[in-house]
Amino acid sequence: MSFILYELAAADKNVRFSPHCWKIRMALAHKGIEAERKPWHFIEKDRLAFSSQGKVPVLTHDSNVISDSWKIASYLDKASPNTPLLFNNQESKTLALFVNQWADTVLLLPLARLIMQDIYSNIAPCDKDYFRKTREKKFGQKIEDISADREERVWEFRELLSPIREALENQPYLSGENPNYADYCIFGYFMWARSISDFQLLDLDDPINLWRDLLLNAFNGLARNSPHLS
Amino acid sequence: MSFILYELAAADKNVRFSPHCWKIRMALAHKGIEAERKPWHFIEKDRLAFSSQGKVPVLTHDSNVISDSWKIASYLDKASPNTPLLFNNQESKTLALFVNQWADTVLLLPLARLIMQDIYSNIAPCDKDYFRKTREKKFGQKIEDISADREERVWEFRELLSPIREALENQPYLSGENPNYADYCIFGYFMWARSISDFQLLDLDDPINLWRDLLLNAFNGLARNSPHLS
Repeated sequence: MSFILYELAAADKNVRFSPHCWKIRMALAHKGIEAERKPWHFIEKDRLAFSSQGKVPVLTHDSNVISDSWKIASYLDKASPNTPLLFNNQESKTLALFVNQWADTVLLLPLARLIMQDIYSNIAPCDKDYFRKTREKKFGQKIEDISADREERVWEFRELLSPIREALENQPYLSGENPNYADYCIFGYFMWARSISDFQLLDLDDPINLWRDLLLNAFNGLARNSPHLS
Repeated sequence: MSFILYELAAADKNVRFSPHCWKIRMALAHKGIEAERKPWHFIEKDRLAFSSQGKVPVLTHDSNVISDSWKIASYLDKASPNTPLLFNNQESKTLALFVNQWADTVLLLPLARLIMQDIYSNIAPCDKDYFRKTREKKFGQKIEDISADREERVWEFRELLSPIREALENQPYLSGENPNYADYCIFGYFMWARSISDFQLLDLDDPINLWRDLLLNAFNGLARNSPHLS
């Protein structure tokens, strides 16, 4: 049984920065699954043709091909039910589903604004035209302007994190005493930023730092020791 | 120990239509708490001065005054720990927190568009100027135009509900085998629409209907039998 994970890579191919790929990177570590990790660039749509879509993460497991991070996480618990579960029960799974939806709808764009210029600076040369075109269309601004006011905007971003702060008041992880996929869904966003930007997202006294540190250290420091630019 | 709940009322004062008040209405029923329910109109900010803010729901419990539906729900489990809990454990509470955040950020505005004209038609005469002014400013359109294309927009709204549909694939309620506050957070939005509009939100074969029917029937048909305009 062999697993292959396609991950978005920066100009330095060792830097893997997609938030959705990081969700799966942590999920694989949680389950103790080793995967071959292949770097991929935005413009290499052809290389994903076998998955009938054009985005990473894509996981292959022998002859199975799964795309979309949520589907991959669900698949992993089914394919490997005897390793630690990403969803301990149906309530855990519902929690992760809504945490993930919340992150993808509430956090993604405001965080993207903060690190947009850093992403652009660090992606592979082959990706730059594609990235500029698609992001400038989406935001209606030049890449150089999207992140320009980030010192002011970071306050809004910190405000958006209040549900996480509130959930962590009484427990170390969103999932309770131990991390599971709900935690990785949010942590993926922090790894997105850490991998490709040195911008300080959190106040030093923000309690979210404690949770992030725990996850940076998890699985023998997998996330902390990953190549990054910050 | 006596409870008073201030609820947003329509021109017909028996019609109470705020989604956030409905969350609390269901929460009180869940806990078997009787509350005196006082009607309130948008422009009656003065009547809420005692709560140091200007929105409903506001709950008073003897000398305690609590505003904000999330804070009220948290308060209820503390004030009445021996009646059925709204949050069975910390994971339940985290689930409800994110479901609530998701609903308030993802569902609120698209659903508001669909029923805006109906709300305007049915609110108290004293509220009409205030409502028109604030909503037209928010949406950048005339009230009459906000809902104009709702037959097309309802498809987008149904798409937004996909996490609920997915969560209900394997269980009758978002919270599992029994409803709790996570369910009421979403159900409140359906009661908002039902109370004040006859617009059909769901396809007849949408599995969400089953869940909504269960909650309409809960607590001896509390929600089903509530005065509404649809």
